[in-house]
Amino acid sequence: MSFQFTLLARDKKNRARTGVIKTLHGEIRTPVFMPAGTKATVKTMTPEELEKIGVDIILSNIYHLHLRPGCALIKEMGGLHKFMHWNNSLIADSGGYQIFSLSPLVKVSDEGVEFKSPIDGSRHFFTPEKVIDYQLALSADIAMILDECAPYPASYSQVEKAVSRTSDWAKRSKDALKDGNQAFFGIIQGGVYQDLRMRSLEEIINLGFSGYAVGGFSVGEPHELMFEILKRIEQFLPEEKPRYLMGLGNPTSLLEAVSLGMDMFDSALPTRVARNGTVFTRYGKINIRNAAYYKDQKPLDPECSCYTCRNYTRAYLRYLYIAGEILPLRLMTWHNLYFSTWLMEEAQKAIRRGTFDEFKKNFMDGYIEGGKDNSQ
Amino acid sequence: MSFQFTLLARDKKNRARTGVIKTLHGEIRTPVFMPAGTKATVKTMTPEELEKIGVDIILSNIYHLHLRPGCALIKEMGGLHKFMHWNNSLIADSGGYQIFSLSPLVKVSDEGVEFKSPIDGSRHFFTPEKVIDYQLALSADIAMILDECAPYPASYSQVEKAVSRTSDWAKRSKDALKDGNQAFFGIIQGGVYQDLRMRSLEEIINLGFSGYAVGGFSVGEPHELMFEILKRIEQFLPEEKPRYLMGLGNPTSLLEAVSLGMDMFDSALPTRVARNGTVFTRYGKINIRNAAYYKDQKPLDPECSCYTCRNYTRAYLRYLYIAGEILPLRLMTWHNLYFSTWLMEEAQKAIRRGTFDEFKKNFMDGYIEGGKDNSQ
Repeated sequence: MSFQFTLLARDKKNRARTGVIKTLHGEIRTPVFMPAGTKATVKTMTPEELEKIGVDIILSNIYHLHLRPGCALIKEMGGLHKFMHWNNSLIADSGGYQIFSLSPLVKVSDEGVEFKSPIDGSRHFFTPEKVIDYQLALSADIAMILDECAPYPASYSQVEKAVSRTSDWAKRSKDALKDGNQAFFGIIQGGVYQDLRMRSLEEIINLGFSGYAVGGFSVGEPHELMFEILKRIEQFLPEEKPRYLMGLGNPTSLLEAVSLGMDMFDSALPTRVARNGTVFTRYGKINIRNAAYYKDQKPLDPECSCYTCRNYTRAYLRYLYIAGEILPLRLMTWHNLYFSTWLMEEAQKAIRRGTFDEFKKNFMDGYIEGGKDNSQ
Repeated sequence: MSFQFTLLARDKKNRARTGVIKTLHGEIRTPVFMPAGTKATVKTMTPEELEKIGVDIILSNIYHLHLRPGCALIKEMGGLHKFMHWNNSLIADSGGYQIFSLSPLVKVSDEGVEFKSPIDGSRHFFTPEKVIDYQLALSADIAMILDECAPYPASYSQVEKAVSRTSDWAKRSKDALKDGNQAFFGIIQGGVYQDLRMRSLEEIINLGFSGYAVGGFSVGEPHELMFEILKRIEQFLPEEKPRYLMGLGNPTSLLEAVSLGMDMFDSALPTRVARNGTVFTRYGKINIRNAAYYKDQKPLDPECSCYTCRNYTRAYLRYLYIAGEILPLRLMTWHNLYFSTWLMEEAQKAIRRGTFDEFKKNFMDGYIEGGKDNSQ
């Protein structure tokens, strides 16, 4: 078996669960946060650094890699693992979301989706079958099939159309699949419409995939709405398959989603905000540019044991960031990825002990959502 | 003794020498290339990575650090070593060269030099005494005194004036010095005028410093002219003191200078060109943007054993560089610093064996100065 998911424990007071995914490239404990390595690099980081942090799986993306350098080149270079020197597990998104959110001149039809490259204006046409081919070229351990991701807000009929098409495409993807070492995940759409979510869930699950992703959230809707729908549909997801909630990276949202029975998460948030000077701490976000840190000898998060917090002061990081240096982007990315990984590891422990609700409450109570600059 | 230089061997067929400098922060084998960490960071790199490469000493700069974040802040943070998390040796340049080459509105008088900050337009006035204070604040193991660096080309009388002032300032620096853990180096000026170089050398040496730097070269003059003058003045430099040729980083020039009896070198070249996509190889420079490397599975330099060359292909680095990623800047900087360090270590070995001339000739024969793109 090249892919296996085992449920290890549940917390009886909520829906939270912990398990382990096995791929040819190692084990992944869930719940897990998967850093974005969209363009065949987790921005600023080496693979060895990710390993030190404890990252077991990273996310890549067919959309970006198809546009540059091309999936064919990556195949010729021995696949994505070898190309980017990453020896642990890889998951590759299909690019459904990216096509609809990043490309100009998108034309979707039942056949597939046409779009223009934002890099050089070249035209591209993705079909479910082509995406399967691209996925085979990359050879990521887990591969997502092509879906249509409706924007937010979108009318009921627009989302209904996207749900139908996503199911059609899932069927065609399934037909195009050959036996191999990759696990394919289906994607559930349906926007913020409860009945469409249920319909999509049933249609995708009936096709049978190695895992199920909930897509089309974190596209602008209030998170409460997302959690409300998750709460209602979660019981209909098969227990023995991993559940991947796409696009979530905010620490408190992660814990909320874990408590609702989700297993896998990805987002560019921790890496992107780090490059903008923002880091997560147990007390909320801080931005290192803040003048308050001018001669602050504390680490980013005094309770954190990451490389950055063990060795550098806020004063140094602030100075470097304002001077336009590259090192602080690395060090703050390191911290945020360590923080996200730590948060999921603590969640796993709490679930095993049956204390997830307390852990979540403690964290939420300490974490000031808007940020904690100036106050510590 | 907080500073000690021991000459270990000479190559009898030329002027090349190898020795060891001891500071409170460790040993430095010479000849040595010192990477530029001008703004309290060797651009893109962590201290641990520099240690892995074998870097024993890095160069910082009073000029840059005075303007931002301020030497007083660094002192308050426990000195430069602690501020930047670097536990090996540090040398801090006085900023003489930088004031004259980077600042607008420079007014030099016998008292000192006034200049405007290119960052915020603020006015600053450096005197030899103030520079000593700034150096004490940073607490680098080796500190340079303030000099006046004439541009190239410059008239005889202009350079003569700079030589006199540099000697006056050296005298005042010497008077301002207190006993401490820092070694102060004098700087010899004189441009491309042989007699002025000799006069400066005598005046600076008569004052007595822990080591002697040759400044005011690598400012635009033909390197042959520099080597010609070095050849004539080298014999008048005291044998038992380290000789630091400022501003040299090109691999072939380094070997030429080693053969003329120079011990220490610094330059931003290896780190700067790496960020522009250029790396040193045994066959000359290559630029990773070159289309020839599109699907080149070779490492940057097939004979190199640095982290980058052991783990990454030219195809991957080229792709990442063109995609505007940060990781290739790190990886190419790593390679160039490894290359420069390796070159000096090989030079040391060759000098000990008395085979430096052959080593130098072999290297020069293989190294195509203009670059070797497309031809391998």
